[in-house]
Amino acid sequence: MNDLLNQFLTVRSQSEELCAPLLAEDYVVQPKEFVSPPKWHLGHSTWFFETFLLQHKPGYSVFDPHYNFVFNSYYESVGARVIRTDRGNLSRPSVADVYSYRKHVDLHLSEWLDQWTNEEPLRTLLMLGLNHEQQHQELLMTDIKYILGHNPLFPPYDLGYKDPEDFSSGAEAYIQIAEGLYDIGYADDGFCYDNEQGRHRVWLDGFTIAAQLVTNAAYLEFIEAGGYGDFRHWHAEGWDWVQKEQVKAPLYWHEIEGEWMEYGLSGLRKLDPEGLLCHVSFYEAAAFAAWRGMRLPTEQEWEVAALAFNWGRRWEWTNSAYLPYPGFCKAEGAIGEYNGKFMVNQMVLRGASDATPLGHSRVTYRNFFHASARWQYSGIRLVKQ
Amino acid sequence: MNDLLNQFLTVRSQSEELCAPLLAEDYVVQPKEFVSPPKWHLGHSTWFFETFLLQHKPGYSVFDPHYNFVFNSYYESVGARVIRTDRGNLSRPSVADVYSYRKHVDLHLSEWLDQWTNEEPLRTLLMLGLNHEQQHQELLMTDIKYILGHNPLFPPYDLGYKDPEDFSSGAEAYIQIAEGLYDIGYADDGFCYDNEQGRHRVWLDGFTIAAQLVTNAAYLEFIEAGGYGDFRHWHAEGWDWVQKEQVKAPLYWHEIEGEWMEYGLSGLRKLDPEGLLCHVSFYEAAAFAAWRGMRLPTEQEWEVAALAFNWGRRWEWTNSAYLPYPGFCKAEGAIGEYNGKFMVNQMVLRGASDATPLGHSRVTYRNFFHASARWQYSGIRLVKQ
Amino acid sequence: MNDLLNQFLTVRSQSEELCAPLLAEDYVVQPKEFVSPPKWHLGHSTWFFETFLLQHKPGYSVFDPHYNFVFNSYYESVGARVIRTDRGNLSRPSVADVYSYRKHVDLHLSEWLDQWTNEEPLRTLLMLGLNHEQQHQELLMTDIKYILGHNPLFPPYDLGYKDPEDFSSGAEAYIQIAEGLYDIGYADDGFCYDNEQGRHRVWLDGFTIAAQLVTNAAYLEFIEAGGYGDFRHWHAEGWDWVQKEQVKAPLYWHEIEGEWMEYGLSGLRKLDPEGLLCHVSFYEAAAFAAWRGMRLPTEQEWEVAALAFNWGRRWEWTNSAYLPYPGFCKAEGAIGEYNGKFMVNQMVLRGASDATPLGHSRVTYRNFFHASARWQYSGIRLVKQ
Amino acid sequence: MNDLLNQFLTVRSQSEELCAPLLAEDYVVQPKEFVSPPKWHLGHSTWFFETFLLQHKPGYSVFDPHYNFVFNSYYESVGARVIRTDRGNLSRPSVADVYSYRKHVDLHLSEWLDQWTNEEPLRTLLMLGLNHEQQHQELLMTDIKYILGHNPLFPPYDLGYKDPEDFSSGAEAYIQIAEGLYDIGYADDGFCYDNEQGRHRVWLDGFTIAAQLVTNAAYLEFIEAGGYGDFRHWHAEGWDWVQKEQVKAPLYWHEIEGEWMEYGLSGLRKLDPEGLLCHVSFYEAAAFAAWRGMRLPTEQEWEVAALAFNWGRRWEWTNSAYLPYPGFCKAEGAIGEYNGKFMVNQMVLRGASDATPLGHSRVTYRNFFHASARWQYSGIRLVKQ
Repeated sequence: MNDLLNQFLTVRSQSEELCAPLLAEDYVVQPKEFVSPPKWHLGHSTWFFETFLLQHKPGYSVFDPHYNFVFNSYYESVGARVIRTDRGNLSRPSVADVYSYRKHVDLHLSEWLDQWTNEEPLRTLLMLGLNHEQQHQELLMTDIKYILGHNPLFPPYDLGYKDPEDFSSGAEAYIQIAEGLYDIGYADDGFCYDNEQGRHRVWLDGFTIAAQLVTNAAYLEFIEAGGYGDFRHWHAEGWDWVQKEQVKAPLYWHEIEGEWMEYGLSGLRKLDPEGLLCHVSFYEAAAFAAWRGMRLPTEQEWEVAALAFNWGRRWEWTNSAYLPYPGFCKAEGAIGEYNGKFMVNQMVLRGASDATPLGHSRVTYRNFFHASARWQYSGIRLVKQ
Repeated sequence: MNDLLNQFLTVRSQSEELCAPLLAEDYVVQPKEFVSPPKWHLGHSTWFFETFLLQHKPGYSVFDPHYNFVFNSYYESVGARVIRTDRGNLSRPSVADVYSYRKHVDLHLSEWLDQWTNEEPLRTLLMLGLNHEQQHQELLMTDIKYILGHNPLFPPYDLGYKDPEDFSSGAEAYIQIAEGLYDIGYADDGFCYDNEQGRHRVWLDGFTIAAQLVTNAAYLEFIEAGGYGDFRHWHAEGWDWVQKEQVKAPLYWHEIEGEWMEYGLSGLRKLDPEGLLCHVSFYEAAAFAAWRGMRLPTEQEWEVAALAFNWGRRWEWTNSAYLPYPGFCKAEGAIGEYNGKFMVNQMVLRGASDATPLGHSRVTYRNFFHASARWQYSGIRLVKQ
Repeated sequence: MNDLLNQFLTVRSQSEELCAPLLAEDYVVQPKEFVSPPKWHLGHSTWFFETFLLQHKPGYSVFDPHYNFVFNSYYESVGARVIRTDRGNLSRPSVADVYSYRKHVDLHLSEWLDQWTNEEPLRTLLMLGLNHEQQHQELLMTDIKYILGHNPLFPPYDLGYKDPEDFSSGAEAYIQIAEGLYDIGYADDGFCYDNEQGRHRVWLDGFTIAAQLVTNAAYLEFIEAGGYGDFRHWHAEGWDWVQKEQVKAPLYWHEIEGEWMEYGLSGLRKLDPEGLLCHVSFYEAAAFAAWRGMRLPTEQEWEVAALAFNWGRRWEWTNSAYLPYPGFCKAEGAIGEYNGKFMVNQMVLRGASDATPLGHSRVTYRNFFHASARWQYSGIRLVKQ
Repeated sequence: MNDLLNQFLTVRSQSEELCAPLLAEDYVVQPKEFVSPPKWHLGHSTWFFETFLLQHKPGYSVFDPHYNFVFNSYYESVGARVIRTDRGNLSRPSVADVYSYRKHVDLHLSEWLDQWTNEEPLRTLLMLGLNHEQQHQELLMTDIKYILGHNPLFPPYDLGYKDPEDFSSGAEAYIQIAEGLYDIGYADDGFCYDNEQGRHRVWLDGFTIAAQLVTNAAYLEFIEAGGYGDFRHWHAEGWDWVQKEQVKAPLYWHEIEGEWMEYGLSGLRKLDPEGLLCHVSFYEAAAFAAWRGMRLPTEQEWEVAALAFNWGRRWEWTNSAYLPYPGFCKAEGAIGEYNGKFMVNQMVLRGASDATPLGHSRVTYRNFFHASARWQYSGIRLVKQ
């Protein structure tokens, strides 16, 4: 078995392992527009391989012609699709059907891979498909957490689930980075997304960045100081969001009979003050920083500092909007829809999280979400003004 | 085994039989606000027995204290509840949990029933609970049909499902009813809902009512004559509804490559012109009648005519708003929330349908829905102006 | 000058007198969808005469061909129109333009009328036009009250405005009406709307109806007893409305520093407990009646009782839905859009109000609004259960 | 009369001159949430002087205590305010009242200014107030254009209004700028906003930027090539916007009987192909650039190039999100709400327009709007990839 095949089978089986603790019912629901049903993730990542790779395999016929309609996400080039808000309205294809679909595609792709002699551009597309599936593995976990964590019964995903020991070491240390010209963007010859390419120079003024991420305890002080009720810390849009959504704490935090509890994958538990803060929106991150008289880093500052310190335990909001790097060019065809068309009204997150598949992220990786998103594992790192 | 117990077990098992062809996934989804997931129906009808009956059984403790929150429908007296639009967001309690819940309640209620000596008011509550479950059996079927019939794969509920032979006998016959004083409302000593009680006199002018329900063929003429595009036939609200929802045909009708198809419980099939028209809203029913230069009957006219002719193959829209009969009084407590509070902005339907459990409806039965509802088995009977 | 002409000029000038206290700015705004700008009422009632009468006058050419688009209300037959929510977005035609339009139409119609020899059907259309303008005079007043009464400066319409002395005489008296067959609907040979026609027999059970309308003091008891916070009194839709709109008192009531104030056309003033309650929705009327253990009359009961007692100081919510009388037929053409197409999801009000032009209403007059409307002068009369 | 006073009276009278052609009705309406009624602009800019300056004048008492509620825009620090969507619902204060308010404030401020001996921080606040009023002069013009240009009668603002001769000189010329370190931000000692301050170094790769703005003729080619119907050119959000709003051309363009017309301040006129394109959103600007195989400049690139070429005839969309410059700090108190809190989800425009008061803009000026805004005078300058 060649390496590619091995890598393919590994990634594919990881998606299924993540779903092992689920009941059939958990695969189906979509409590909010931004959540996708687990079943859909399993089908969509499979559809990606079928559509962009297997269509080139001689003699391959699609598993079910309706699936293109069901499992296309946002590729306008590839035809009509179920509208995003309707994904949770579909009881069929069933979970069993989706696993059959995966088996079918895995089988045909495996057979084919075995005969490959590392031919381009198929190899590039395969790598994109694998990274795409890894991205969906992270979304799968955050969506599962949302589905279970918003159920009135607070069912655990896995009673024995252990969050990695991602606690603060205590002291509030800062790192100074000198002004100068720095190179930003991907420079190696492995896989990266098009949005990281185009390595380019930037000038950075000197800055002082926290060595540690913000802890739950530090954020509790903000809550207790009335931070959610004082407009002065917030962006105007953030303030509207807080009022409209009646936000009073990070997602998954519940004040129950005077005690702060947090829903985690092992169920509802007491909030650990030493733990790293997670599940805040960009608005909350920026308001917290303003309250502390500090700010968030830009993505360039982050990249420069992270290189030296190997960060990546939480996605970290930056104060950078998601925009193209100099020289960015969309690829031709459907693959060109992967990144570029989202480059407006989103903020960049850097790092990685417990839910990120091992080896998927890197220091140049640009994650991006709307400023109000907080169901991802998103935390805060401060920079002195 | 006494009669009550027998009746109880029969009704309870019928709900489960209706669900036999479903996959676990089908139990969960809620494609529109007005649809409830099958799982919810099974739980809610069980909750009704637990809440209104078993709470009076000495020593009974509830199956799960969270279920009141999950399975309460609209009883403000009985505490907070999952908002209606969120029912389809809950993967738990699982289908298996709900069946355990049913088993638990059935067991405890059966034991208890066996010792009853026909005591009131428990017997009345039990009869209400059984009729309530039968109402939900009908909703269960119409919701299942909606869930499967709006899936892009059009899965059949049961390939062998046979609609009863409810075809028109052809000739357009009319019945003349003379003017006079008539008695309206329930008069026997069996079960009926509070909204049918208060038998009272009404004066009716003479009227001429169709012996047959409108057929698919007759309604197709309306479509082909441009009925959906001519405001003159429609109520102002109906016209807004047609435009906003882009309605062009009854629910479940699809024009595919020039041919009219209809989704039924056995799957997508050619529309039968001889079949009785079904799944139209009040707006459509009234517009069709206006186009024919006729009108819909009032519920009093319908009741008087139906007594003589034993109607009840389709729910039939009347031109009567759902309002209290003279002397109507809400019962005290939560049971009083059953009917009275809905007596505004709804239209009355009379009859019964293929989805109505045998023996559940009667000639005085008052069904009611919003004027735009059409996922029930609702058809049209005409009256001459 | 003939009688018709005299009547025409009188009605037309009354509309303008109502607007005398307004500033140009007051003519323009539309704070809610259901309100129309005063300018629009003046233009629309003029458009009605131009469109339905002057078009038949030989040689008449329209004042401005764009005005049909601007001043058509809901007549689909007469072409496209400004959508209802946009009426308040139009600064032009200016107030001066609208008065010129009125002058133009009045002049041409007056000239023409002078030559008439009572010819039908023009005379019928003229009477409809005059009654139509009188209806808009009432809406004009209620819209002006809404515009000024919802301005943060609470400007008076007319500081010297005196509400008629419409106070309760104190004692709570009731009238008993015997059961029997009664005739309902318009029987004379004057003007009436099509919805009152078709005099017909109804059977009424005996009933006991209040001689007086509900006073502010009586309604205050409901508020103080927590009536707005107790779902048991409310229709389900009414309860939703109370929660969503945060309703706590009748429209125009303000609790300011512990004292109840009411906005009236002479400005903000202390609420008079002896005054007749006004500006409540059907939901509030029905909830109040339920709290008192009583109910609202049906429109037939009201008509029978009112005939004997000459009621008409407030519009009174009935518990009747707005539906056609037996034999009701829509007229051909645009005029047929006047009433019939609104006969769904509205409740009937009977009586008249201070804002109703003298002689416009009558005992058979059927006014109708959505159950949530309360900017009309709507009050409550109770019937014993 | 000192210089400050002179400057103050000049700016204040300019606002009133802009309104000279308006009728009272035109001052009142608000056809869209983003438009403010002219009356409101006149009152709000006056309120700014009253609130932030005159409150410090000994013995000054406010003109009307209610006006703070009516004319506060978004300053949370200064109390409750009319919600933005309600501005067009207010007929009072009347236009005459607002002019009295202006007179009152002008009088008191003039008296006071005359005694000043250039004292800080009052002088700084005055300069802010004047620049604030100039910003509102531009919004006043764009809002007036929107109000009249969206009236079905298309009334001209001023029949004799002449757009400056802002036509393209024909040839498509490009300017090359070399790579290097450049300084960005305001460096002089005149007035500037806080968002321009913090002059700082940036590294720019070399780039090639158009010497001319895009013309109507060039944009027509995009329309005729089906640009509004091809998702490939659009951001995902832009594509949604095009579909939802049914956008088919720039704002104020109308295709009437096969001919392109444009509404301008002198009324509806034939579109001039040589004219500079205006009234497009960021989405349209970016889509057009993509279709041409080019891109928009960043704001830094624009500033560097503009310095040499004295640009400023149209606001020009850049591909830069509106974010703080290095070292940006919000001022204390209400004045701190001026800019910083909008630094998320907005795009930067550079330049100036015909509606910008003379001397108000400068090469470092950062204007910002949501990506969908197009009622400002916004055009396109291309950069080669």
